[in-house]
Amino acid sequence: MTAGERVVVEPLPDLIVEPIVRLALAEDLGRAGDITSAACIPAEARLGLAFVARKPGVLAGLACARLAVAALDPGARFESRKQDGEAVAAGETIAVVDGGARALLAAERTALNLMGRLSGIATLTAAYVSRAAGTRARIIDTRKTTPGLRALEKHAVRCGGGANHRFGLDDAILIKDNHVAACGGVAEALRRVRAHAGHMVKVEVEVDSLAQLREALEEKPDVIMLDNFALADLREAAALVRGRVVLEASGGVDLDTVGDIARTGVDLISVGALTHSAPVLDIGLDAV
Amino acid sequence: MTAGERVVVEPLPDLIVEPIVRLALAEDLGRAGDITSAACIPAEARLGLAFVARKPGVLAGLACARLAVAALDPGARFESRKQDGEAVAAGETIAVVDGGARALLAAERTALNLMGRLSGIATLTAAYVSRAAGTRARIIDTRKTTPGLRALEKHAVRCGGGANHRFGLDDAILIKDNHVAACGGVAEALRRVRAHAGHMVKVEVEVDSLAQLREALEEKPDVIMLDNFALADLREAAALVRGRVVLEASGGVDLDTVGDIARTGVDLISVGALTHSAPVLDIGLDAV
Amino acid sequence: MTAGERVVVEPLPDLIVEPIVRLALAEDLGRAGDITSAACIPAEARLGLAFVARKPGVLAGLACARLAVAALDPGARFESRKQDGEAVAAGETIAVVDGGARALLAAERTALNLMGRLSGIATLTAAYVSRAAGTRARIIDTRKTTPGLRALEKHAVRCGGGANHRFGLDDAILIKDNHVAACGGVAEALRRVRAHAGHMVKVEVEVDSLAQLREALEEKPDVIMLDNFALADLREAAALVRGRVVLEASGGVDLDTVGDIARTGVDLISVGALTHSAPVLDIGLDAV
Amino acid sequence: MTAGERVVVEPLPDLIVEPIVRLALAEDLGRAGDITSAACIPAEARLGLAFVARKPGVLAGLACARLAVAALDPGARFESRKQDGEAVAAGETIAVVDGGARALLAAERTALNLMGRLSGIATLTAAYVSRAAGTRARIIDTRKTTPGLRALEKHAVRCGGGANHRFGLDDAILIKDNHVAACGGVAEALRRVRAHAGHMVKVEVEVDSLAQLREALEEKPDVIMLDNFALADLREAAALVRGRVVLEASGGVDLDTVGDIARTGVDLISVGALTHSAPVLDIGLDAV
Amino acid sequence: MTAGERVVVEPLPDLIVEPIVRLALAEDLGRAGDITSAACIPAEARLGLAFVARKPGVLAGLACARLAVAALDPGARFESRKQDGEAVAAGETIAVVDGGARALLAAERTALNLMGRLSGIATLTAAYVSRAAGTRARIIDTRKTTPGLRALEKHAVRCGGGANHRFGLDDAILIKDNHVAACGGVAEALRRVRAHAGHMVKVEVEVDSLAQLREALEEKPDVIMLDNFALADLREAAALVRGRVVLEASGGVDLDTVGDIARTGVDLISVGALTHSAPVLDIGLDAV
Amino acid sequence: MTAGERVVVEPLPDLIVEPIVRLALAEDLGRAGDITSAACIPAEARLGLAFVARKPGVLAGLACARLAVAALDPGARFESRKQDGEAVAAGETIAVVDGGARALLAAERTALNLMGRLSGIATLTAAYVSRAAGTRARIIDTRKTTPGLRALEKHAVRCGGGANHRFGLDDAILIKDNHVAACGGVAEALRRVRAHAGHMVKVEVEVDSLAQLREALEEKPDVIMLDNFALADLREAAALVRGRVVLEASGGVDLDTVGDIARTGVDLISVGALTHSAPVLDIGLDAV
Repeated sequence: MTAGERVVVEPLPDLIVEPIVRLALAEDLGRAGDITSAACIPAEARLGLAFVARKPGVLAGLACARLAVAALDPGARFESRKQDGEAVAAGETIAVVDGGARALLAAERTALNLMGRLSGIATLTAAYVSRAAGTRARIIDTRKTTPGLRALEKHAVRCGGGANHRFGLDDAILIKDNHVAACGGVAEALRRVRAHAGHMVKVEVEVDSLAQLREALEEKPDVIMLDNFALADLREAAALVRGRVVLEASGGVDLDTVGDIARTGVDLISVGALTHSAPVLDIGLDAV
Repeated sequence: MTAGERVVVEPLPDLIVEPIVRLALAEDLGRAGDITSAACIPAEARLGLAFVARKPGVLAGLACARLAVAALDPGARFESRKQDGEAVAAGETIAVVDGGARALLAAERTALNLMGRLSGIATLTAAYVSRAAGTRARIIDTRKTTPGLRALEKHAVRCGGGANHRFGLDDAILIKDNHVAACGGVAEALRRVRAHAGHMVKVEVEVDSLAQLREALEEKPDVIMLDNFALADLREAAALVRGRVVLEASGGVDLDTVGDIARTGVDLISVGALTHSAPVLDIGLDAV
Repeated sequence: MTAGERVVVEPLPDLIVEPIVRLALAEDLGRAGDITSAACIPAEARLGLAFVARKPGVLAGLACARLAVAALDPGARFESRKQDGEAVAAGETIAVVDGGARALLAAERTALNLMGRLSGIATLTAAYVSRAAGTRARIIDTRKTTPGLRALEKHAVRCGGGANHRFGLDDAILIKDNHVAACGGVAEALRRVRAHAGHMVKVEVEVDSLAQLREALEEKPDVIMLDNFALADLREAAALVRGRVVLEASGGVDLDTVGDIARTGVDLISVGALTHSAPVLDIGLDAV
Repeated sequence: MTAGERVVVEPLPDLIVEPIVRLALAEDLGRAGDITSAACIPAEARLGLAFVARKPGVLAGLACARLAVAALDPGARFESRKQDGEAVAAGETIAVVDGGARALLAAERTALNLMGRLSGIATLTAAYVSRAAGTRARIIDTRKTTPGLRALEKHAVRCGGGANHRFGLDDAILIKDNHVAACGGVAEALRRVRAHAGHMVKVEVEVDSLAQLREALEEKPDVIMLDNFALADLREAAALVRGRVVLEASGGVDLDTVGDIARTGVDLISVGALTHSAPVLDIGLDAV
Repeated sequence: MTAGERVVVEPLPDLIVEPIVRLALAEDLGRAGDITSAACIPAEARLGLAFVARKPGVLAGLACARLAVAALDPGARFESRKQDGEAVAAGETIAVVDGGARALLAAERTALNLMGRLSGIATLTAAYVSRAAGTRARIIDTRKTTPGLRALEKHAVRCGGGANHRFGLDDAILIKDNHVAACGGVAEALRRVRAHAGHMVKVEVEVDSLAQLREALEEKPDVIMLDNFALADLREAAALVRGRVVLEASGGVDLDTVGDIARTGVDLISVGALTHSAPVLDIGLDAV
Repeated sequence: MTAGERVVVEPLPDLIVEPIVRLALAEDLGRAGDITSAACIPAEARLGLAFVARKPGVLAGLACARLAVAALDPGARFESRKQDGEAVAAGETIAVVDGGARALLAAERTALNLMGRLSGIATLTAAYVSRAAGTRARIIDTRKTTPGLRALEKHAVRCGGGANHRFGLDDAILIKDNHVAACGGVAEALRRVRAHAGHMVKVEVEVDSLAQLREALEEKPDVIMLDNFALADLREAAALVRGRVVLEASGGVDLDTVGDIARTGVDLISVGALTHSAPVLDIGLDAV
């Protein structure tokens, strides 16, 4: 994505975001609050600040900044110039805020920690997405998220143009190698699951060979994950399946390999690094 | 650090770690729990698993894995083979665990998410520390941590041989550019702070030039942060101060520059990337 | 179901159940605890009690009773004689418990409130299930559950032989009349959803006529809900669809009508009353 | 009660109701929020809706609906047409609401689940109350309430014209059969309690025979519960006591028997079914 | 009370005490835990310590000490030598504990803060009680307790031989001057309350003159509070009432005046100072 | 301080204060709310009240009163006439409030409990401070605070003109006798701590003799606590140290001794009684 482009993403309800922001503020304020500003800054001082991108990237988490400011100064004015899912160039202003100086300085780190981290995820996701452009493959995340931030981080993946895998252990079925081993085979695992799964629950199974893929296909899962397949095997798998089942490539994916994987014809490429290893997007807060 | 070397680090109390682990488990289990294992794995099945490093690195967060397992199967046996602060080679076993199969599979992702993330921080810290070896400079963290995980991430920095900057806005004073601007100068800011700060609170001030450094020195802060100083200026600052005040270099630090910065004679080098951009350490959970 | 028959149901993790039990105990103990037992019963007195079904029914929620007792007397012995999903006759013993008299009497109401309510749901579900016996139709629940108890109540539906509809607004898509109206038609709503939904999310749409059903079928949703269809229309819908899509009958379902509805050939019959109007199963706690 | 009649009931403070409403919304929104509306409904769309009674009944819990809407759209307009404690006919509008379409649709189920459940309790209570009309007997609830909802459900009982028994184990003393057994008799239990109870705590004792009633009377408790007494025995008890002590009839009460019980002259009739087995009042949310 | 005497007091359930203890520990441990012990004390060091009274007093809150130790070292041995409600001499050992040195030192302040504060309340209560000895008057507390600690502080009052007034705004009715003013008189206030109060709720009214007392008596409240009555008026009130209603003297009570007040014949003397101004009992933790 | 004098104190963020206030309100409202006002006071009645000092003192905690009122009536008007840190005479008005009568009466006790307790601490602190006037000695608090209220109580100490010792076990190092014993001496303890402590953490050590003081001085801690030193020894210590290290006198401090101790030349005098034994400041709420 280049600056100005935008992925349209629906916002999370504040009811989900606000408790996380307040927890982060409480963690930072501790037992005595911001003792530096209390010592240096008059209580009545006001400040105008701008959130500015220091590096190019894709934004996610503006609501975190807005809610952090509102939690410490309900009367502050927060004006977004960009939106979640929007690409920015270095130096562009993301939002401007005007309010009590102490409140803004106390909210700064929480706002930046959250928005920077989430924008980092969106930016990395967009990089993967761009390398898969022109193919049918979508970039998806995993459950390798930061404890406590899963809802926000999966939102950030969407901001980068990616899509979401399941949100937890409870909302979809994913049969992995340990399950297959416990059941004595892919087909038996799928049969057990079929008998147990609700009608609103999708079923995916992980396979590690073309033979297992063929066995899985017989049982008609919704999705099959091809774990650590070589490119040639991915291609053969895609040819074999021809759209009857959704195919997810997993394992060994990085920015160098994702393009080739995408061109094998798989539907989905899951990338744990989107959430577990994305560097932060550098955003600063400047006086205006 | 090479495999087998170890930074001795005191553990955090479980009282601090356990609520974070339980929150992470609850986030993953959602409203219905692990529906895959419930469908595939008999309730009475047991499993023996090993946490194994897939890449070399420095460990942090073993307590998270132990507590995640215990939260879902209080009777499981968890045996550590390595300790926080210890360097491991790829393929080495970190811990073995034996317990109910469903509980272990449900705890797996939470355990790995936390231990992998914290070990990633420890590993990156160790890399910075090794490049500063032979100098007086210590590598320190910042407040650029993950919301909700600050205590754990700062522990991980110690595991990698780094040290901690302040833990929040309330436990030490750090006068930044906005504060200086509001007070009309470094010296005035330090005087205001001196009148306000308790006797158990250290005071640091950020300066962005040698002139400001000289002004700051007059007021005898405990620590002076040299923000984005060129190497030559860092050297001049260290020569000027000659140990009278602790000097912290900040800004523009990466693995390529940290060695040169360390050799300027500063006491501390703060690196936000330790906690905001460390890639996860790849750890897996294998059947034994 | 008759006494002794059993639906095999996987238990929820204690991590999900225990916080609910502790909240209920805290609500009942208030600020001063059980002042009656404190006044009447010596601190060292012990008691042996049996949970006994006063009416026939299907059990759910034994874990609640076990955890309520353990929360107040960690050393008490709790021995289940029956299991969740098992049908009992009036007078049968469900579990016996032995522990501190004050603790047991204080846990009694919480244990019975939860187990009675959940067993009431299981019992009512089993009644619906039995009337649909011999057909392809499964009895499913809705989101009309008690706030705070959804995980437990959906577990209770499974204990009665029913299956679960979605668990929340976030784990599956259900397009209702308001959504259709906002989109200007069933087909457009399904197209918008298709573009938005993740690959692990199933999609259901509500239709209120055979014409809408035909329109919906074109877009291949996973499930179609037939809202308040007459029996003849349900039959025609089932004939029309012939298994290509899962069909859910909804609205106007009670114990008198459910059999006829089941025989129309639909796959699912959703019954809000399972969780919003099930009378409690009468269970008592008797001295042994 | 017939439509338009009203029991005047004082509202609970929002401070008690709001946390329950927010917990229920969080349970329903899960980790991703309302994914259906996010896919179908434009973010800026607005909606006007009416809460409408589908069946006649007595209302309770309007504050839950108001607070659910406000939690998701603080700017929404919520206008009550009826009040808690008011009887409505089928088809009558209870409240109208105007606000963001996504917020209203996401709040709908929480609002209806709470208001429907509480109105169901009020409606059932009113039915019992009407059958006891013309007697001195008041209909009262028990501690057989839904865990987490006791404050709301006891409020609903008042909305139906009933009164409340104690709210927990800590605010009044109720000596039951197990306590009597542990003390070796009703009189001894009352003496022990008398020595222990504070001056602001009322004392009730359960008796299961006229002989025990006479023994209890000697010790002057505030209330005596006649447990499972035959009608003739209730009458004899009332004649014997002649207003000196409050008499509560308990056990075997249903809508068929409550009138006869009320005419025996007892002061109170406690009915567990008010809160443990009341069917929901059917309320819908219609476009306006 | 002299050392060795004991008021028999029933313990609070751990379920009520433990959350308070854990909150206090978390407040003290903060984000980094006990950094002094981590630096000085080897992880494996063990310690034997004794809780010792430095001044004579009456004990309350031993459970807090036991639970604080157990929360940080579940394997520690805690052995009580005294009990809640027992009078101790200066120098007497209250309990001995043996466990991990770091855990014990970290738990020390929380244990002492709670036990010292509660024992201070018990000790002050006992002083008031002893001055009222030989009269019918009981010493009672008020709602002037520490926010968050009401259950514990009212328990401490019982440990000192006092009794409890109501526990909150919800468990008993107390008509105060503002209510009387709003109703236009004591009698009208009592009539309104009578119509509203449940059968398990006691009713008290505050009066400030003998005339108001006579007006109140007509309405037969359970308790009448004589607010700031002179001694002669208290005597006249007691003579007038002759045991028909419980009389509570309130206002202007201190250790010098309580004896004379008790001898006027009132039943209860309420003392806010028991909980709002009791000095701590000095307890130390010594090596053994 | 005399009425009208004022210590300028920076307010705590509402984010820290509000959760404590809401917890206190919830504790007081219980499960049924204020049943007296519900029975006596019309729902629409309004009230104008004034918080009035009944005794002279120094104020702290006005924010608690403001937030308690706002929590129950967001539309109430709260107007402060005095500020935290300001001395008031008996009879002076602190704040006036105008709002719903039921809300104000329900908030009254919580507001007064918090403001009275905190003002009591400020008042006692001011008394100590005045006796040390004209010396270099500052009066400081300890960790002997009320569990859950540490942030508020340490703020109250500042309102009285005192200063704060550390806020928890984690924000500064204080080596006590047990640590010294475990290390085998003051010097060794300081060396271990020096190796472990971060650069933003101050180090204090407790000594109990002039010999230990000399040993400690060698290791250059930031602060030395002189525990239970006689006046002559305090004087000698101050002479010996001559400002090189901050000296804290501790133990045996009361209002009679504090002046003499202050005149020995120590820098700090710590007084546990400030927070563990301060009597409440009597504040009332009067109709206006």
